[in-house]
Amino acid sequence: MNDNVADAAIAGAALQQRFDAVRRRSVSLAEPLSEEDCCVQSMPDASPVKWHLAHTTWFFETFILERHEPGFAPHHPAFRMLYNSYYNGVGEKHARAQRGLITRPSFDEVLSYRHAVDARIGALLRQGDEAVAMLVDLGLHHEQQHQELLLTDVKHLLSMNPLYPAYAAGPLPAMPAARPQRWQAVDAGVVEIGHDGDGYSFDNELPRHRQFVEPYALASRLSTNGEYLAFVQAGGYRDPAYWLSEGWDWARNNGLASPLYWHEQDGQWHEFTLHGLQPLDLNRPVTHLSYFEADAFARWSGARLPTEAEWEHAAGDARDDAARSLHPGGHADADGLCQLFGACWQWTSSSYAPYPGYAPQPGALGEYNGKFMSNQYVLRGSSCATPAGHARPTYRNFFPASARWQFSGVRLARSLG
Amino acid sequence: MNDNVADAAIAGAALQQRFDAVRRRSVSLAEPLSEEDCCVQSMPDASPVKWHLAHTTWFFETFILERHEPGFAPHHPAFRMLYNSYYNGVGEKHARAQRGLITRPSFDEVLSYRHAVDARIGALLRQGDEAVAMLVDLGLHHEQQHQELLLTDVKHLLSMNPLYPAYAAGPLPAMPAARPQRWQAVDAGVVEIGHDGDGYSFDNELPRHRQFVEPYALASRLSTNGEYLAFVQAGGYRDPAYWLSEGWDWARNNGLASPLYWHEQDGQWHEFTLHGLQPLDLNRPVTHLSYFEADAFARWSGARLPTEAEWEHAAGDARDDAARSLHPGGHADADGLCQLFGACWQWTSSSYAPYPGYAPQPGALGEYNGKFMSNQYVLRGSSCATPAGHARPTYRNFFPASARWQFSGVRLARSLG
Amino acid sequence: MNDNVADAAIAGAALQQRFDAVRRRSVSLAEPLSEEDCCVQSMPDASPVKWHLAHTTWFFETFILERHEPGFAPHHPAFRMLYNSYYNGVGEKHARAQRGLITRPSFDEVLSYRHAVDARIGALLRQGDEAVAMLVDLGLHHEQQHQELLLTDVKHLLSMNPLYPAYAAGPLPAMPAARPQRWQAVDAGVVEIGHDGDGYSFDNELPRHRQFVEPYALASRLSTNGEYLAFVQAGGYRDPAYWLSEGWDWARNNGLASPLYWHEQDGQWHEFTLHGLQPLDLNRPVTHLSYFEADAFARWSGARLPTEAEWEHAAGDARDDAARSLHPGGHADADGLCQLFGACWQWTSSSYAPYPGYAPQPGALGEYNGKFMSNQYVLRGSSCATPAGHARPTYRNFFPASARWQFSGVRLARSLG
Amino acid sequence: MNDNVADAAIAGAALQQRFDAVRRRSVSLAEPLSEEDCCVQSMPDASPVKWHLAHTTWFFETFILERHEPGFAPHHPAFRMLYNSYYNGVGEKHARAQRGLITRPSFDEVLSYRHAVDARIGALLRQGDEAVAMLVDLGLHHEQQHQELLLTDVKHLLSMNPLYPAYAAGPLPAMPAARPQRWQAVDAGVVEIGHDGDGYSFDNELPRHRQFVEPYALASRLSTNGEYLAFVQAGGYRDPAYWLSEGWDWARNNGLASPLYWHEQDGQWHEFTLHGLQPLDLNRPVTHLSYFEADAFARWSGARLPTEAEWEHAAGDARDDAARSLHPGGHADADGLCQLFGACWQWTSSSYAPYPGYAPQPGALGEYNGKFMSNQYVLRGSSCATPAGHARPTYRNFFPASARWQFSGVRLARSLG
Repeated sequence: MNDNVADAAIAGAALQQRFDAVRRRSVSLAEPLSEEDCCVQSMPDASPVKWHLAHTTWFFETFILERHEPGFAPHHPAFRMLYNSYYNGVGEKHARAQRGLITRPSFDEVLSYRHAVDARIGALLRQGDEAVAMLVDLGLHHEQQHQELLLTDVKHLLSMNPLYPAYAAGPLPAMPAARPQRWQAVDAGVVEIGHDGDGYSFDNELPRHRQFVEPYALASRLSTNGEYLAFVQAGGYRDPAYWLSEGWDWARNNGLASPLYWHEQDGQWHEFTLHGLQPLDLNRPVTHLSYFEADAFARWSGARLPTEAEWEHAAGDARDDAARSLHPGGHADADGLCQLFGACWQWTSSSYAPYPGYAPQPGALGEYNGKFMSNQYVLRGSSCATPAGHARPTYRNFFPASARWQFSGVRLARSLG
Repeated sequence: MNDNVADAAIAGAALQQRFDAVRRRSVSLAEPLSEEDCCVQSMPDASPVKWHLAHTTWFFETFILERHEPGFAPHHPAFRMLYNSYYNGVGEKHARAQRGLITRPSFDEVLSYRHAVDARIGALLRQGDEAVAMLVDLGLHHEQQHQELLLTDVKHLLSMNPLYPAYAAGPLPAMPAARPQRWQAVDAGVVEIGHDGDGYSFDNELPRHRQFVEPYALASRLSTNGEYLAFVQAGGYRDPAYWLSEGWDWARNNGLASPLYWHEQDGQWHEFTLHGLQPLDLNRPVTHLSYFEADAFARWSGARLPTEAEWEHAAGDARDDAARSLHPGGHADADGLCQLFGACWQWTSSSYAPYPGYAPQPGALGEYNGKFMSNQYVLRGSSCATPAGHARPTYRNFFPASARWQFSGVRLARSLG
Repeated sequence: MNDNVADAAIAGAALQQRFDAVRRRSVSLAEPLSEEDCCVQSMPDASPVKWHLAHTTWFFETFILERHEPGFAPHHPAFRMLYNSYYNGVGEKHARAQRGLITRPSFDEVLSYRHAVDARIGALLRQGDEAVAMLVDLGLHHEQQHQELLLTDVKHLLSMNPLYPAYAAGPLPAMPAARPQRWQAVDAGVVEIGHDGDGYSFDNELPRHRQFVEPYALASRLSTNGEYLAFVQAGGYRDPAYWLSEGWDWARNNGLASPLYWHEQDGQWHEFTLHGLQPLDLNRPVTHLSYFEADAFARWSGARLPTEAEWEHAAGDARDDAARSLHPGGHADADGLCQLFGACWQWTSSSYAPYPGYAPQPGALGEYNGKFMSNQYVLRGSSCATPAGHARPTYRNFFPASARWQFSGVRLARSLG
Repeated sequence: MNDNVADAAIAGAALQQRFDAVRRRSVSLAEPLSEEDCCVQSMPDASPVKWHLAHTTWFFETFILERHEPGFAPHHPAFRMLYNSYYNGVGEKHARAQRGLITRPSFDEVLSYRHAVDARIGALLRQGDEAVAMLVDLGLHHEQQHQELLLTDVKHLLSMNPLYPAYAAGPLPAMPAARPQRWQAVDAGVVEIGHDGDGYSFDNELPRHRQFVEPYALASRLSTNGEYLAFVQAGGYRDPAYWLSEGWDWARNNGLASPLYWHEQDGQWHEFTLHGLQPLDLNRPVTHLSYFEADAFARWSGARLPTEAEWEHAAGDARDDAARSLHPGGHADADGLCQLFGACWQWTSSSYAPYPGYAPQPGALGEYNGKFMSNQYVLRGSSCATPAGHARPTYRNFFPASARWQFSGVRLARSLG
């Protein structure tokens, strides 16, 4: 066995190990849930847990087995359509708003689907094909994205139940007092953003390119529930002066007066969490904000949202793990930015658009990101629901301006003279 | 023990026996289904199976235990709101369109709810209170209505699944050739309709009163799939001349071209049934028609829909069981009407309205029927999904003109000179 | 000249005279209005004044000239589609909700259209064809219906203007105090309703037929603004106990708390009228009620709405003119019913349905009435906007249960034991 | 009279002259129209001509007279609300979708309003207040924006009329053959965009700031009807591969198959224009495209839309007049860009967002631009409907991605390696 072969074998074993871990984790996320919890869809934007488990499997079957497995035969001929999310290049797809009507296949049948595809992928991986390995890698990152969606979707479902059932046992961990917010100043200049190709990235992070940023400052930490409550209590939802026109109309038409999961009961604010309904923790970063609310809060605060270039440039080469190790309520290095990752996604003022020179990959996988580049805003960082190791400074999350069911919060910014 | 006491004891035992049977049957209807099947709601008009099982229990708890059980305490304090269907007199109610989001309580918890309430009702029944007995009787008729809805709702849910799963094992029983349709003539005159108070009835069947009917004729049997197919193939869905204006707009806006569960595949018509997708049986009565379709078909046939007085007067004192024993495809008595009961509900041209002198009972139970008397049409007879013994000639079923998910068909009528 | 010819000539001259009068009146109704007032459509249910003037002319052109004028050529080829209201048998029609977008042809061009068609109809009438005379008669009754709609539609348009402009100069005439409401009892029995064919009627009034009415009583006069205000002030719009379920949802979803044109300003109730905004006159019959409001008010009053048979039978052979001469605030004959005609239309509990034996006329004119017989309720009598001579006891007006912009009010009824 | 005073007097006279000219032009734009044409609103996005004439006057009355005229009294107390477009800081406003219901005040009353306010502004201008002069300047630029909207709105209204009436007499001027499209290459570098403060600009063009552009090329001219027709005929509206996901859904749900005003009649393409329905001129720039269509066409063409920085940097200091003098079908300078101004607005891929350091002015006028900076895309250049002298390279027009009724077209761009 020469070195190359040995390296490939080692890499293959590592990939198989990672494959097993990621795939297992998806199933383990469903463990606290009943089959009923896993089947229901609470709104068109959200998907059932069972659908997430099936669709991530479909991804491996459709983009790897179907193309690379000799003598491929589908696990079930109807699944190709049933679990196609949005790939026109693959063919017909089941209507998104009707994902919750699929009571059959059962949860167990979906687990069987997972096991069968896992075994077939394992067999393929052992053949050491580089193209397969790259697609498996993509499939795992794809699955990690769905792990986060699975949690935000099930949180939304449970929140619609007047009994406010908890996903996780035990109380929400307490949070130490938030450190004072400071402003991290950054000089003007040409900066580089976008992924440099070293390590994994999605195509929407490419190519690395130059942008000019005027001088600005970024808040050292996320805005807290306490700070947002001050906005609420100051009448922030009743004064159009703080709001984008579209956001004002949207908030009024939907009768909004607080973030998505806040509930006032007997004069006391509570927040629905994965641990059930809890008293509002004023030290915790405010989350489940729409872009419109984040923007209005920033304006009321005498600040603004950062652009994605400002955020990424300031984040520099912060590593997910390191940033996570900084406790959200404080940090070892008193001069730096904290809560970049692992607390909540941070709205930027940047519309989700292609980087200069962006080219989606050919074929149906080119639909992964590019076709969604309109009327959405970029969020940066990562959240408490993001799988460990999935975040990086160049990562671009994106949602419409009215989306609130993600773990989405605010880091303030300011232009400097 | 004197005779009265003995009679009461016998009656009580019979009621308890009937209570057990009806309650058991509801649960048995869910046996072919998974917990997922029982939890999901396919449209706002339909309810989950689990909701039906809980709501019928709520009915006994709220209208009997809460009023008659000494020291009453609710099984679960939230259920009073959660399983209130539409009784404003009881208080708050959970939004109808969100019944499918209640993944918890689980199916098993709902069964426990049923068992607990059953035991408490049983204890109460043994005390021989006449008022309780009457309410239990009402509760059982109420539960039987929900047994039919449970089946139509789950049929709708399964129909939304591209895999067309079957509720019942085995093929749909074959149907003998339909007998020729004949016209049963009825003379003009003052007739009495409405319930005479002997045996059970809902309040909307009261009071018995007089109506004048001009001479008319009623078709001896229901219209068949074959007859309706001729309407479809003659372009019935493309020619406004046959349609009510509102029905035409509705059919066009919804792109309708056949009854609800018909599917044309490779030039062959099929019908989704509780036994799954089946070739269309031309001898079977056409069903799952809206009022608009039934009316258009009647006009195309040179006939019309009967009024409810015409239907009830012609049905005379036909008994459910007897009528059922007449095979839908033929009948012993060649001169009579067949398929009055047990095949499908029959649209009448009568708007659902109070009979002269109608008075709903006082309190929240007065909301049972009366408040729905607008913009709905009366259907008569009963269907294959109606529990045995639940039908009678005076029974008034009612649905909006666009409803199609019930087992609703057509018996034609004609005015005579 | 023999007698028959002379009679025909006299009849022809009378018809021409009536034709001229009716056609002139339509134009005169537009006199207080600007061209802008006449062009705009305030909601899909209402039509612009100019459209009414054009459509009534189209009716004569399409159903008379096109069929009976030798060498017929259309006044303008596009008008056949542009001014077709709902006759599928005639062909394409312009979308109802877009009638207000037709700024051209101008008002003057529509007047020219009217003059040209009037002249051509006049020429045809002079030829004494009986079929033409009958169609002209229908066309005039049709035009009178549109005269009422023209007024209710323009009232709605002006009501949408925050300046509350008046259609008619001067104040609303004062109203004497309402007489006490008494109950006119009627015995049970077989009654005849429907038109007997003597004089003019629409096809929906035919055939005259028998109905059985149980004993009932009818209120001697219409319910007043004062009586309805008591319902409002008693919380009638906040208590679901009085409402049909559908009406309650409708009222809540639309935030309704009073009749259509009522406005509370500085604690004082006003009503928008054709004379502009006026203090609410408590003696005047309440009007602009939906069926749902009329029904809820009746229930709150311990009464109900009459059926159309009850109304027509009690009205007997009351003549429009005679009934009108009875002052709405009182009447010469203290024992009779007053305000049958000329004040406002009276909702009945009868769904709009065909009479037994009803047959629409063949061809496109068969669409005049019959195809609207679903989900509408019958109103009886006539209103202050109905042209003199247009009303009769057998007349069936009809609107959906939520319609409020017609002059629609309430006469109460009660069942007698 | 010292020099400053003399300069001010000269400037004041020039401003008065410009005021007169701009105000006159608005009225003259209504000359080909009837009062009916001027009153009707064809969709919520469009406003009636009469409203434009009144609102632009309201702008002068509210932001100048009310603040600067001693003893100010409103022309009509209701106009402050009635003609307020969207300024929450001013107070209540009439619902946008109901602007077309205001038949009174009449067209003549609005003209009187204009004359009265013009006279009062003239009197104020003669006092030489610099703040007033600046506000009048803003008011004139505001009015010029409405002149363009007036034309696009009335074009939309006339397009809804099946008679396709023309706004302008005579045929559409013929267009010479389009020159070949060439690519103007631009090097990478830091560029400055935004207004430099010399001459007039809106606040959204400020501040001038730096951006980095990667190397790119811009098409020398606009894309033509002929080129777009090739996209249509190649099935561009039937293949999702070219479309943003949101645009594809939007196009399908609305049944779109060509630009807004294109009509295929007897196999021949026509375009509705201000001169009525005309055969499609293949040499004319394609216009009335949504962002989604422009983007799909660009992708089909192997190109993309430019960013606003790319557009502005390439346009350099091109002057409106000079650029206009270049015939759209060709140009004097064979190496330059043509059709920058005066043909149609050019979609950019830039979301409408604040420039770094952007600060809206205080008070209600701060609502002029800033609050609309979400979910809209920037268009650059100007159109055939833009008033002469109103365009400049830094001008930022903006509309939602689905807007089609503006004169909006495409100039292609490409990234260079």
